[in-house]
Amino acid sequence: MIPTITAFERSPDGGKGLARDTRVRWALEEVGQRYDVRLVSFGAMKEAAHLALHPFGQIPTYQEGELVLFETGAIILHLAQRHAGLLPTDAGARARAVTWMFAALNTVEPPVLDLAIARIVENDRPWTPDRLPLVMDRARVRLGQLSASLGDTDWLDGAFSAGDLMMVSVLLRYRASGLLDEYSNLAAYVARGEARPAYARAFAAQLAINAPSD
Amino acid sequence: MIPTITAFERSPDGGKGLARDTRVRWALEEVGQRYDVRLVSFGAMKEAAHLALHPFGQIPTYQEGELVLFETGAIILHLAQRHAGLLPTDAGARARAVTWMFAALNTVEPPVLDLAIARIVENDRPWTPDRLPLVMDRARVRLGQLSASLGDTDWLDGAFSAGDLMMVSVLLRYRASGLLDEYSNLAAYVARGEARPAYARAFAAQLAINAPSD
Repeated sequence: MIPTITAFERSPDGGKGLARDTRVRWALEEVGQRYDVRLVSFGAMKEAAHLALHPFGQIPTYQEGELVLFETGAIILHLAQRHAGLLPTDAGARARAVTWMFAALNTVEPPVLDLAIARIVENDRPWTPDRLPLVMDRARVRLGQLSASLGDTDWLDGAFSAGDLMMVSVLLRYRASGLLDEYSNLAAYVARGEARPAYARAFAAQLAINAPSD
Repeated sequence: MIPTITAFERSPDGGKGLARDTRVRWALEEVGQRYDVRLVSFGAMKEAAHLALHPFGQIPTYQEGELVLFETGAIILHLAQRHAGLLPTDAGARARAVTWMFAALNTVEPPVLDLAIARIVENDRPWTPDRLPLVMDRARVRLGQLSASLGDTDWLDGAFSAGDLMMVSVLLRYRASGLLDEYSNLAAYVARGEARPAYARAFAAQLAINAPSD
């Protein structure tokens, strides 16, 4: 059965690959699972039909027959548990890879969400010039800890896993701020992720929708 | 084998049960798994010995023989996969319960982290009086969507699951702001969580450390 995911009809990032459907596309490509995409407009995301699939009115969703999932973490974990290639077989290593998925989403991503709020949502507020350096410094605390933990290894814990897929995806959101380049091993880690053929296919697929050549 | 978790030597909340070890204690109590606790001071959390267990210098950690995990989501999922009581047996229902765990941590928790930053970390900053209403309104968007999704059901998707455990734990952090009480079904949902004997045992165990009677 070919699953269907949803994605923005037109991503706010114009094809930079930062919308969350790219994470799910990447996981699908890593495990070699074909998929269909249904595009959703901003208006339709807030309507009842979409809210029945995703209570928070976002993308992506994942539909596979009767099963409907949302939250990229849950979708990618579901794929990783049913296909080889995204989680180690050893039970302990598997639990550690899942730990990195949660660390990406609950510890490393919140500061970059704050950064997006400051730089986009509150960009024209009078306090933003004074406040932004505090937000940046809080992000540096997390990135510094992650950088120390990664050290000079290729991936977070042994072979590439769903934990790396999620962490690289989250770190990509830091790039525009310049913060990622302050940590050379994290920048190289992200580049290793982007160099994976599955990532390249996922990126190209979202780009074809969001920045069509004309 | 009895696992060992770490917790604050003295929680910043003085025993309100909002530190993340309470979530893990609750899960351990739900599945009937005894556990040991090792208390860690703020200073020790940033030292090499603790950072080797938790790269971000936080609590809780979870040690079970050679296995070391951090991130409450990963710890609770690990427990839920190995013991009955926190995840449904049906594969689809199980994936949906995991979806709610991720929704709690990556969609519902970030706005309350922002609220804590505004009300605690940036409390004395000149912009906070003007900015706080914006932060509150962003939180209301998420809580309103969650409230609509929960409706008048007892739990998020059928029987109580690890998804509810995590969501109730995250919602408890909203209570002090008054926001939780704006959504009567969410307040009642949290009260149902608190009424579970396993939660009561977890709460009492952290309270005994953080607010000893003297």
